[in-house]
Amino acid sequence: MSDVNPTKVAILGASGYSGAELVRILLGHEGVELVCVTSRSESGRSLADVFPRFRGVGLAETLSFITPDIEAIKSTGAEVAFLALPHGVAAGFAGSLLDAGLKVIDLSADFRISDAKVYEDFYGQAHPAPQLLDEAVYGLPEIRPEQIAAARLVASPGCYPTSVILPLLPLLADGLIDPESIQVVSMSGTSGAGRKADASLLFAECNESLRAYSVPRHRHLSEIEQELSIAATRKVIISFTPILTPVTSGICTTIYASSSGGAGAGDVGSSLVRAYGDSPFVRLLGENSPPDTKNVTHTNFIDIGWAHDCRTGRFVLMSAEDNLVKGASGQAVQSFNLMSGLPETSGLTGL
Amino acid sequence: MSDVNPTKVAILGASGYSGAELVRILLGHEGVELVCVTSRSESGRSLADVFPRFRGVGLAETLSFITPDIEAIKSTGAEVAFLALPHGVAAGFAGSLLDAGLKVIDLSADFRISDAKVYEDFYGQAHPAPQLLDEAVYGLPEIRPEQIAAARLVASPGCYPTSVILPLLPLLADGLIDPESIQVVSMSGTSGAGRKADASLLFAECNESLRAYSVPRHRHLSEIEQELSIAATRKVIISFTPILTPVTSGICTTIYASSSGGAGAGDVGSSLVRAYGDSPFVRLLGENSPPDTKNVTHTNFIDIGWAHDCRTGRFVLMSAEDNLVKGASGQAVQSFNLMSGLPETSGLTGL
Amino acid sequence: MSDVNPTKVAILGASGYSGAELVRILLGHEGVELVCVTSRSESGRSLADVFPRFRGVGLAETLSFITPDIEAIKSTGAEVAFLALPHGVAAGFAGSLLDAGLKVIDLSADFRISDAKVYEDFYGQAHPAPQLLDEAVYGLPEIRPEQIAAARLVASPGCYPTSVILPLLPLLADGLIDPESIQVVSMSGTSGAGRKADASLLFAECNESLRAYSVPRHRHLSEIEQELSIAATRKVIISFTPILTPVTSGICTTIYASSSGGAGAGDVGSSLVRAYGDSPFVRLLGENSPPDTKNVTHTNFIDIGWAHDCRTGRFVLMSAEDNLVKGASGQAVQSFNLMSGLPETSGLTGL
Amino acid sequence: MSDVNPTKVAILGASGYSGAELVRILLGHEGVELVCVTSRSESGRSLADVFPRFRGVGLAETLSFITPDIEAIKSTGAEVAFLALPHGVAAGFAGSLLDAGLKVIDLSADFRISDAKVYEDFYGQAHPAPQLLDEAVYGLPEIRPEQIAAARLVASPGCYPTSVILPLLPLLADGLIDPESIQVVSMSGTSGAGRKADASLLFAECNESLRAYSVPRHRHLSEIEQELSIAATRKVIISFTPILTPVTSGICTTIYASSSGGAGAGDVGSSLVRAYGDSPFVRLLGENSPPDTKNVTHTNFIDIGWAHDCRTGRFVLMSAEDNLVKGASGQAVQSFNLMSGLPETSGLTGL
Repeated sequence: MSDVNPTKVAILGASGYSGAELVRILLGHEGVELVCVTSRSESGRSLADVFPRFRGVGLAETLSFITPDIEAIKSTGAEVAFLALPHGVAAGFAGSLLDAGLKVIDLSADFRISDAKVYEDFYGQAHPAPQLLDEAVYGLPEIRPEQIAAARLVASPGCYPTSVILPLLPLLADGLIDPESIQVVSMSGTSGAGRKADASLLFAECNESLRAYSVPRHRHLSEIEQELSIAATRKVIISFTPILTPVTSGICTTIYASSSGGAGAGDVGSSLVRAYGDSPFVRLLGENSPPDTKNVTHTNFIDIGWAHDCRTGRFVLMSAEDNLVKGASGQAVQSFNLMSGLPETSGLTGL
Repeated sequence: MSDVNPTKVAILGASGYSGAELVRILLGHEGVELVCVTSRSESGRSLADVFPRFRGVGLAETLSFITPDIEAIKSTGAEVAFLALPHGVAAGFAGSLLDAGLKVIDLSADFRISDAKVYEDFYGQAHPAPQLLDEAVYGLPEIRPEQIAAARLVASPGCYPTSVILPLLPLLADGLIDPESIQVVSMSGTSGAGRKADASLLFAECNESLRAYSVPRHRHLSEIEQELSIAATRKVIISFTPILTPVTSGICTTIYASSSGGAGAGDVGSSLVRAYGDSPFVRLLGENSPPDTKNVTHTNFIDIGWAHDCRTGRFVLMSAEDNLVKGASGQAVQSFNLMSGLPETSGLTGL
Repeated sequence: MSDVNPTKVAILGASGYSGAELVRILLGHEGVELVCVTSRSESGRSLADVFPRFRGVGLAETLSFITPDIEAIKSTGAEVAFLALPHGVAAGFAGSLLDAGLKVIDLSADFRISDAKVYEDFYGQAHPAPQLLDEAVYGLPEIRPEQIAAARLVASPGCYPTSVILPLLPLLADGLIDPESIQVVSMSGTSGAGRKADASLLFAECNESLRAYSVPRHRHLSEIEQELSIAATRKVIISFTPILTPVTSGICTTIYASSSGGAGAGDVGSSLVRAYGDSPFVRLLGENSPPDTKNVTHTNFIDIGWAHDCRTGRFVLMSAEDNLVKGASGQAVQSFNLMSGLPETSGLTGL
Repeated sequence: MSDVNPTKVAILGASGYSGAELVRILLGHEGVELVCVTSRSESGRSLADVFPRFRGVGLAETLSFITPDIEAIKSTGAEVAFLALPHGVAAGFAGSLLDAGLKVIDLSADFRISDAKVYEDFYGQAHPAPQLLDEAVYGLPEIRPEQIAAARLVASPGCYPTSVILPLLPLLADGLIDPESIQVVSMSGTSGAGRKADASLLFAECNESLRAYSVPRHRHLSEIEQELSIAATRKVIISFTPILTPVTSGICTTIYASSSGGAGAGDVGSSLVRAYGDSPFVRLLGENSPPDTKNVTHTNFIDIGWAHDCRTGRFVLMSAEDNLVKGASGQAVQSFNLMSGLPETSGLTGL
């Protein structure tokens, strides 16, 4: 397809749901050669053994998991490492990988919060690598593509934050909403909780179940408020309630915000079109057009609709994405594409 | 169980989901003799034929659907009629049934809105029986049990409204929240949309799907705001977004409201305990304890949790109910019990 | 309801799905006083804490789990003990409880297989209490009610076996089918695998998944073949494939068997009516009428349909039950009723 | 990717589930230019309007549905037509399209049965175009690739038949199983029933439901037995029971067949490897390795596992596929690739 050599890529923590989604995307990415996958628990097994979905696909039969180890990873020739590791663990690897000359795209929360004190406040532990925070770039490709393209260390955003930040940023930047009025309810699929043996995530516990959790202070508030504050050029504090729902993947977010300065639905539409009209993965559905998660699952799209309620003076912003794709691994690959000088959509066009 | 003769009961529109749920409850209700079920589409078939779940249960094999007709209903000796009919249709039967001496419990929206103009505004048609609005009682048994007990015509509340009104009423009455600050997101199971052949409700359309609808002005706003306004003794206008989720039954509601007068979580708890401490079907889960719909399905319980977010000064109120039970048929039976002088929990204790 | 004192009952292993279902049924059973629930992991917590569904129901707020201990159980005054424990563990308690004068209804596999060698062959361990096998009664209430009524120790059947044995027994006894021709495929809900933290049972692993397991020799074959052999008065060996499906509860079984001696669908119907016409929990749907699990969930019914394929000379027998009710806890309570001289349907009439 | 001009393709009946899946695949197929989509009900609307999943993808915004009409289809320049129409309707278009010089790939049952009397027997109507039966090729690409490559008219197999025929054909051809002993139970997702407004397919009717249907004589028996008979070189009659399960897509098939001539699991494995070792879409999982539908959804793979039960002398064959992909649209595109001289996997490599 092209003359350029594919980039050699490693995935650390490839046996979880975000890791598996990275594998799925990268196995079909023509600019990538997957050379290394790590997992403490699955070490020695092939990709195809651990994920039967990948049987018969490319090198899934031959590439085996190794225990995460910097020297072993280096010896694979990997040029870029995706970290699909728990927060706290990811930061422990990032510095060594950077020192070894790899670029790092971290899907954990470790480098999303620029202020180590806020990290400690929300994550309950001292930041494991504060010296790297300055150079880490919060990787929303729609917002800061140039910074991502130039970065060595990208902190890829969380699933909820992506669904909340993208609809709100242009409106805050354009002064269309009152920053103090933002109130969010987000529903997520159960894959967002990870592939861990936890009785509360059993099928029989999640089926026919709708339940809020982490009320009133979910950890993702820290990165949401950081990014909204940058856009609003003032401190923004919001309300946020996550709900666990019986879907495997998908995030459906509803945001209320009061109109500011007499802005109406048309202003919201214009602002969003200005911001995202050329973005290949943001689909603007229009006024009074709620998105549906089933239209974005397994894709890197985020669909956004909006409405203005003249009875209350509030806007309703609605977004839908796949928590594992635009909310995690797809977005990370989008950043990888920018960092590698590839078209932003490489490997991400599957339906 | 008792010497009293059971009350003879008719269900109009018994072939839909609310109707079937009434049948389920009333077949096991010792104070009830089900004497009549009507359905235009299922006329002539037995309850057991239409609902195989009821095969072998009591008179389900022998009681057959009839076409709704006042004379035919009267001739069954029915003393109370439940109307599980579409709005607009229910009102057409209510007057004749009342004239024939029956008491009427209407599960449609027709008699919930005391102001015929508001009804017309939200339901898009002139009210079909405005002369009955004065005597209709909005049937929230926790709020006005005496009026229900004395009523001839009860308008049983909607599923969303029950989940929104019950948590909010005491707080508004006690002045703990700002009436202008109320913003609600409610998730519902698909049975709430009724048992109608609609392609958008197919399994393949609802599974792995989360989607808002009727944004920004769902019809249920009319009854919610009516009841909140009574409690607040002023006009209350709120934001409300309903979300269709892939569960058969269940409503999960999240409400934001700003604290008023320095009220905290303890004040909210006290207010709710005062209001519902003796209510058999309201379970107060406590602070920072989100409810889960799977704990209330097939029961008449509504579970309520709450939290105070000191960062924003807002309360988060969370409720869970079964849309077909506490949100429809169970609540209607609860009103029936009050109207019949039976214990409020008769027929509603099943788990 | 009655003058008789309720029977004092203990549930050992009440924190799993079968145990919780026993709690649900027995909390509403007028002939039962639940005096003891045991669980190693939940010791000290109340029923309502562990199962929020039971909040506000009877003594669920006040009855707390204790560590399983014979003396402690005896001191509660329990007269009957239900064992909802893993196989191998249940047998360890049964003898001591019997010695202490309690009757025992065991929901595990430990006393289902009368031949200790067959048990060892299928369960991979020596039988832990072979001296009790002689008096244990395989507790299918439709088949041997008198033996159950007189028993001290009942081995309540497994979920798959109930769905396979009940349709086949009369046909084998009446010589209508060839005993060598029986081939079964059974689908089960995930609650059948128990409430254990196992990654393969996560919602995200079971949703949109259909998969066979334990092929070709599932443990339940041992009890199925034992009971079929008794009916056929010869050794019966069958094929059986279980399939895990994305429902919380329900078993749907399809059985093929060749017609013997020219028997047709009418003979099958007659045989089943003779066997089960008076059984309150067996519903015979008729020829060419497949059952649907959603009509039996949360009930103790088993629905049976059948067909004769004249092209192949084979019968198709189809059954549906709730794996946790007729397939486990409901059936155990049915045996309890017989042992206690209560109506067979006591506590089991809920819809 | 290549210098060759893409083939111009029309899809008739593109608004159903098979049609939408064809659209999904063909929008990403580099050898295809989609020039025409027809639908009576959606005429005039764009692909993106009818299927919001396709918004922003290629020509989905600009290509609009037209009413099916031969002249209109011809004028689009279409060279190949996929028919995703109901049986009976498809045959009415096939002849005219062939006459107009198009190749036709029919996803309906109309040309699958070579004997018009068998068609009439199973489909209850005279065959609408018997003169075309001789040249129609039953389009299983793994079995007769050369005939498909040379065909003008391909009858693409049904979803159940594909899952049953592929595992059995080599074993029958190699004489490893008794042709009279075949008994099948197949579970399907609800999308297999089509995108029609039918109350029995509502989410609330299918969720928590497992139910057999069309017992004992489903229409797909006709094509299954036709193909098995060819392989066995004798008339084969089988038992087949389909089960509707609460997944959107997926077929899970379990087949019993008696070993013939002392064949064991190793012989089955060898036979399948000989038949499918080079087939890109058949994945042989090995002995005692049941497939899982979640590993094949959205792909064109069929996964096959097998077991030998020495207790009964029977084999258990197990297959899993996506009913809409390998069971319908993917397989049709696989035939298209062969007919067009393209690599068999073109457009079908997505995960």
